[in-house]
Amino acid sequence: MPYVKIELTREGVTREQKQTLIKGVTDLIVNTLNKDPHLTHVVISEVELDDWGYAGEQVSVLREKGITADKK
Amino acid sequence: MPYVKIELTREGVTREQKQTLIKGVTDLIVNTLNKDPHLTHVVISEVELDDWGYAGEQVSVLREKGITADKK
Amino acid sequence: MPYVKIELTREGVTREQKQTLIKGVTDLIVNTLNKDPHLTHVVISEVELDDWGYAGEQVSVLREKGITADKK
Amino acid sequence: MPYVKIELTREGVTREQKQTLIKGVTDLIVNTLNKDPHLTHVVISEVELDDWGYAGEQVSVLREKGITADKK
Amino acid sequence: MPYVKIELTREGVTREQKQTLIKGVTDLIVNTLNKDPHLTHVVISEVELDDWGYAGEQVSVLREKGITADKK
Amino acid sequence: MPYVKIELTREGVTREQKQTLIKGVTDLIVNTLNKDPHLTHVVISEVELDDWGYAGEQVSVLREKGITADKK
Repeated sequence: MPYVKIELTREGVTREQKQTLIKGVTDLIVNTLNKDPHLTHVVISEVELDDWGYAGEQVSVLREKGITADKK
Repeated sequence: MPYVKIELTREGVTREQKQTLIKGVTDLIVNTLNKDPHLTHVVISEVELDDWGYAGEQVSVLREKGITADKK
Repeated sequence: MPYVKIELTREGVTREQKQTLIKGVTDLIVNTLNKDPHLTHVVISEVELDDWGYAGEQVSVLREKGITADKK
Repeated sequence: MPYVKIELTREGVTREQKQTLIKGVTDLIVNTLNKDPHLTHVVISEVELDDWGYAGEQVSVLREKGITADKK
Repeated sequence: MPYVKIELTREGVTREQKQTLIKGVTDLIVNTLNKDPHLTHVVISEVELDDWGYAGEQVSVLREKGITADKK
Repeated sequence: MPYVKIELTREGVTREQKQTLIKGVTDLIVNTLNKDPHLTHVVISEVELDDWGYAGEQVSVLREKGITADKK
């Protein structure tokens, strides 16, 4: 009985990327724990940049300063 | 001190249905656990169909295939 | 696709009361929204009294002062 | 590794108030627990008034009756 | 800024399986969304079988009846 | 109607520190948003080190390597 919640900042995640995340997380759980995929739910929640704080600052402010969350 | 979160796919739930859920869950908790209703909060969260995955697929895709979540 | 989380202070909730909550919430959702019960998950989470704060005080402190959450 | 979720009814919270909440919660955790702020995330989630139930009633209904959540 | 919560029934998940889930989810997000792994947190929450309800029944009851969540 | 969830790794947080967090978050919300404290709930959730993943590794493994979350 797995339930997974993925919270992300809302920064242009596409429908295809969401499908990749849902399929990938489900397969990972099914393969690692041998769970029935029909008992596995994944919920994605996109968060506005004003609503996510990191190190005490809104992500919207960090982005205005040119600070990204991209992999280096 | 109960707090309840109800997550649903966003598929036309009406204001009246939300009120039925809120009243029903609150009464259930008050009657089962003898809790003060003024300490009972219920939050409903509707999730877009692209954002809910079931068995590795987006619910939006399942709906396009004619697969519903209706009671049989 | 409903998922419900019920958070309660850990104060002697019995297995039977949990079953009553799970059955009651599931029936409420099935009847109100016409959802398939096999797509409905309910998770109960009991919270220690030191870990729940109400009006700025730990519930454990409120209970020591004789303040309960019982219905009047 | 702290993660904080703040759920509020959507009633005109400003960008500046959100920044105050994010900065305040982060400072509180950093000072109380001596945590690195770069490991502290805060997420604010605003909830529509139809979607928050208190004592069995939708907050939207309570507001129509003139009942507020303001400090007295 | 991703945060992921994985809720599972407590049924003997090992430390190694948890590490596989954490590594797998993090890699999936980093590769799909090009996110910095140092901004990616994953939290696993194991739920007692009395506390998880499926189709209106406690999972503990389902397990006593011989109904598992295993992949077929 | 605010509800706050604070998730922390379980690393010796004391009852007094929890009270400081609960009081501090409640005061912050009451003062910033002018909310009635009797409508403000705060829940602390401590997470085992094997169950929290950061940058793809369990915090328990990071701690074994001498990597802490302390403020520098």
